[in-house]
Amino acid sequence: MPNIINQRDLDFLVYEFFNCEALTERERYTEHNRETFDATIDLARRIAEDKFMPIQKKVDEVEPTFDGETVTMVPEIKDAIDTVIQSGLGATTADFELGGMQLPYVVSSAAYSYLTAAASTTLGYVGLTNANANLIEAHGTAEQIEKWVVPMRDGRFAGTMAMTEPGAGSGLADLTTTADRAEDGTYRIRGSKIFISGGDHEISDNIVHLVLARIKGAPKGVKGISLFIVPKFMVNDDGTVGERNDVALSGLWHKMGGRGHTSTSLSFGEKGGAIGYLVGEEHHGLKYMFHMMNEARILVGTGAACTALIGYQYSLDYAKERLQGRLLSNKNPESAPVPIIKHTDVKRMLLTQKAYAEGAFTLCLYGSSLYEDEKTAETQEQRDKASLLLDFLTPIIKTWPSEYGPKANDLAIQVLGGHGYMNEHPVEMYYRDNRLNPIHEGTTGIQSLDLLGRKVPMNGFAGYQAMLAEMRSTIEAEQARLPEQCDALARAIARLEETTTALMTVAATENPDLAMANSVEYLDFFGNVVVAWVWLKMGAVASKGLDHLSHDSDEAFYRGKLQAMKFFFEYQLPKVYASADLLCSANRTTFDMQEDWF
Amino acid sequence: MPNIINQRDLDFLVYEFFNCEALTERERYTEHNRETFDATIDLARRIAEDKFMPIQKKVDEVEPTFDGETVTMVPEIKDAIDTVIQSGLGATTADFELGGMQLPYVVSSAAYSYLTAAASTTLGYVGLTNANANLIEAHGTAEQIEKWVVPMRDGRFAGTMAMTEPGAGSGLADLTTTADRAEDGTYRIRGSKIFISGGDHEISDNIVHLVLARIKGAPKGVKGISLFIVPKFMVNDDGTVGERNDVALSGLWHKMGGRGHTSTSLSFGEKGGAIGYLVGEEHHGLKYMFHMMNEARILVGTGAACTALIGYQYSLDYAKERLQGRLLSNKNPESAPVPIIKHTDVKRMLLTQKAYAEGAFTLCLYGSSLYEDEKTAETQEQRDKASLLLDFLTPIIKTWPSEYGPKANDLAIQVLGGHGYMNEHPVEMYYRDNRLNPIHEGTTGIQSLDLLGRKVPMNGFAGYQAMLAEMRSTIEAEQARLPEQCDALARAIARLEETTTALMTVAATENPDLAMANSVEYLDFFGNVVVAWVWLKMGAVASKGLDHLSHDSDEAFYRGKLQAMKFFFEYQLPKVYASADLLCSANRTTFDMQEDWF
Repeated sequence: MPNIINQRDLDFLVYEFFNCEALTERERYTEHNRETFDATIDLARRIAEDKFMPIQKKVDEVEPTFDGETVTMVPEIKDAIDTVIQSGLGATTADFELGGMQLPYVVSSAAYSYLTAAASTTLGYVGLTNANANLIEAHGTAEQIEKWVVPMRDGRFAGTMAMTEPGAGSGLADLTTTADRAEDGTYRIRGSKIFISGGDHEISDNIVHLVLARIKGAPKGVKGISLFIVPKFMVNDDGTVGERNDVALSGLWHKMGGRGHTSTSLSFGEKGGAIGYLVGEEHHGLKYMFHMMNEARILVGTGAACTALIGYQYSLDYAKERLQGRLLSNKNPESAPVPIIKHTDVKRMLLTQKAYAEGAFTLCLYGSSLYEDEKTAETQEQRDKASLLLDFLTPIIKTWPSEYGPKANDLAIQVLGGHGYMNEHPVEMYYRDNRLNPIHEGTTGIQSLDLLGRKVPMNGFAGYQAMLAEMRSTIEAEQARLPEQCDALARAIARLEETTTALMTVAATENPDLAMANSVEYLDFFGNVVVAWVWLKMGAVASKGLDHLSHDSDEAFYRGKLQAMKFFFEYQLPKVYASADLLCSANRTTFDMQEDWF
Repeated sequence: MPNIINQRDLDFLVYEFFNCEALTERERYTEHNRETFDATIDLARRIAEDKFMPIQKKVDEVEPTFDGETVTMVPEIKDAIDTVIQSGLGATTADFELGGMQLPYVVSSAAYSYLTAAASTTLGYVGLTNANANLIEAHGTAEQIEKWVVPMRDGRFAGTMAMTEPGAGSGLADLTTTADRAEDGTYRIRGSKIFISGGDHEISDNIVHLVLARIKGAPKGVKGISLFIVPKFMVNDDGTVGERNDVALSGLWHKMGGRGHTSTSLSFGEKGGAIGYLVGEEHHGLKYMFHMMNEARILVGTGAACTALIGYQYSLDYAKERLQGRLLSNKNPESAPVPIIKHTDVKRMLLTQKAYAEGAFTLCLYGSSLYEDEKTAETQEQRDKASLLLDFLTPIIKTWPSEYGPKANDLAIQVLGGHGYMNEHPVEMYYRDNRLNPIHEGTTGIQSLDLLGRKVPMNGFAGYQAMLAEMRSTIEAEQARLPEQCDALARAIARLEETTTALMTVAATENPDLAMANSVEYLDFFGNVVVAWVWLKMGAVASKGLDHLSHDSDEAFYRGKLQAMKFFFEYQLPKVYASADLLCSANRTTFDMQEDWF
């Protein structure tokens, strides 16, 4: 069985980096301890090994089919998903009284890393269902929670998010699905949605679609969008599943990767109108949907990071086994070939993967820790601060892993050489699976506009300033221990501030479109700075670990962490200065390019 | 029918940039003129449109199968290849008297760009056959040429290159296939080869394998390797195809992409020994193979560039048609959505593709022009200089397009968003096809060692100095016209020289392994400088074209070239300075990394 995740690294993150044992002092977690945390992570590992790893390749090769009535997919998918649900891992963070495990978010995310890495997109059925349930729980009525959330938490129903339309991808303002109010207070939904993940399947008894639509007479644009619960099957008052609603699968998409999760086109209301139930108030749908979308964005980043981790692990194991060539200084052809991990360029490719994958994953866990503090930190001030940081960082947590995860997988292919290009090994599949992540739940371009156009100036730059302050407080704390990296990060932050000021000035005094012209460079710049900070923090913990070694075997682990930190600071972080120069000069080259010049 | 290549760009390259009409003054080309050049390019375009574009998707979806006896592949492949051969395009540059078209190499490469872009790897059958024939023509006996080259030129036989073995990928020194001399002067070949492109198929009457093997008692390492012609079927004295030789297909590889060209495992001599004919002298096989490999490396670069070009073209056409969203400054939701090409970030993604794809393709055509001059330039001095430059540049011509071509295709996917991830559009296939190019014919890592370890110091830095001198003479010539880019290129070259000196010093005084530790960064640095130079030259030609417009419609084209040049200088070239800093400090981070730290 190939390794999925480095367990030592997971322990490092959960116990040394995020110090999750301290959370057991919070009232919500008093019944937990390291043993229950470990048991959960171990449970996830075993399910990943037993149920998802063995079907990875089959799921990739056997795409789901649709015969006009039913979607047929690899049957082992249902078994694997059911095992997750039955094990309780479908509700790791939910309250005990709702049948949940009531675990801290970081512990839950750590456990899920095994499942996410092994299952790649197959686990999407669980993730989207939870996010859907969380939205209804937050914004629905008590009756809606009873009717839809409870069976989703039980795993009997699945959930989706139905936003995209054929004529409006990223441009939600133009969506045309309509909703007509019926006399009984329900609505009739009519329209077409595309790219709906998990839009139809036979895994669950029912599917709860959350659909964005426009009520007749609503304002144009995003301020006229409402949100509806539109089930595949109606649900009777006693909770049993009733008649089919007017929702039809109109087709399956054939994807480059990520084939564990069906991507569908859905038609609503072809036979008169699908019955929908309004969530919250009319015309406020997009705000509610962002509740789910923000969660989905973090999930996308985490998925990208976990797929990078498993690809790294696979290529690392391969590089230790595969014999080929000799060191350059050895000119003796009689000597034995060496494992390729001894070649410096292979070490470069592995170290790059380690720096990207572990940096990305730790960033995502940091997102989970902010979510934790937002919910359970002791003071209101701590909770507000966590909320502010999470909101600010969401486009970065979504995008940095999504952009650098595929780069890591690309290097996993390269480590295996010709063998990496063949489907005898899973690395080319990991690449294909990961390639969706810069696209769905808001492309990298959309995220960059969100960061620079909205999140940075938001509330008088409050989130932006809070993030810089966080990073500076780490620099202050670790200056004596890691002076070189602290100085480098301080320089990069200073340049980031100059850049931000320059762009805000262009936006205010010149042209907002021009200020946004290189927003993707800005997002990449900010992301690299944040991940450098994450690496500095990891390096500091590792350095302290080296000072107080409890096991000899830990030494190599900590040295590896420090070397990956050095790598990130020496090979990756310096790239931001070219971005900074481009941004500070408000470069107009792409902005000025004309359509007929191409 | 989607556009394959921008014909205006091809005309620009053939007639304005490389001035191929002037070649008709060379004796070899006196019977040619612009009409014959245009007719050839047009012929290639039509075959690409009629025979290759319609089968692209089918070739990708229907992988070849092997029933133990016969390889079955999409039948239209044979028809398409036969059409190329029958049209004469199989022998564009061969002598008239050998049935060739006797065209200049740049014109041939320009014509082939249509076929290569449309056919992707399917055309590999023709390319490898030609390279095989060229090797035997250069190093074989008259009898071997008559027996093997003539039917390959006719298209009756196909050719392969059989190097890689299961236990020795990039490490040719360890190959174990053996050759025993028989009494009749032929050899008996025994061993296994993998990743043999076109190793078995039913397209041709026979397949001529060029096989590297070790004669019993030969020295270890690369100095004990000999080269053999090993046919699939024996050939009788009258040229008819005879009995099956002892060469068997042992399996087909299933690839991420590039499915038009079978990748095979071959067993030689399982029934006693495959009959092989020595090429040239014993133990000198690798030197001869490099004749073919160098040609194959240029073909790989060109394939990567053409796949980038067609992906660019596809995403450009899509971006002009697809309506979505509004400009940022337009807050009126009642206004109509705009074609996405109007969004600056989409322009960025298209301009990046243009800069990468056209830069890479022009670099490859420059390789063809050097090959031309090596063969037909007037003076020996000119021929020697061209030969020196081509030899020096081969790792860059192979690698830069192979690394940046997939990056261009990756952006083509991103321009199409969710649609780009689905196989309804070909861009995800272009990416998968292109991903092989940094691997085969010597990985990027191997190319970087070739450049820094061999090509740079070769002959007292002769090739290196010649390349810098070429670039400096362009700077001198265009300083007045394009001062900003000339200055930027001069700065980058100066930094490249400092870097090279620093690395050579480390190699000489410290540790050659350490000097090579970041060789991939060096190759990337050098490649970016060379492509910046290529763009400067294109910019200069475009700028002159703007001064003397013969058609109004040319203005937009020239402005686009200049804008892409600006883009390359402002967005891409500045990235080399981070590489330079890393290299000049002889960074030890990857070098020092230990196996057990991962």
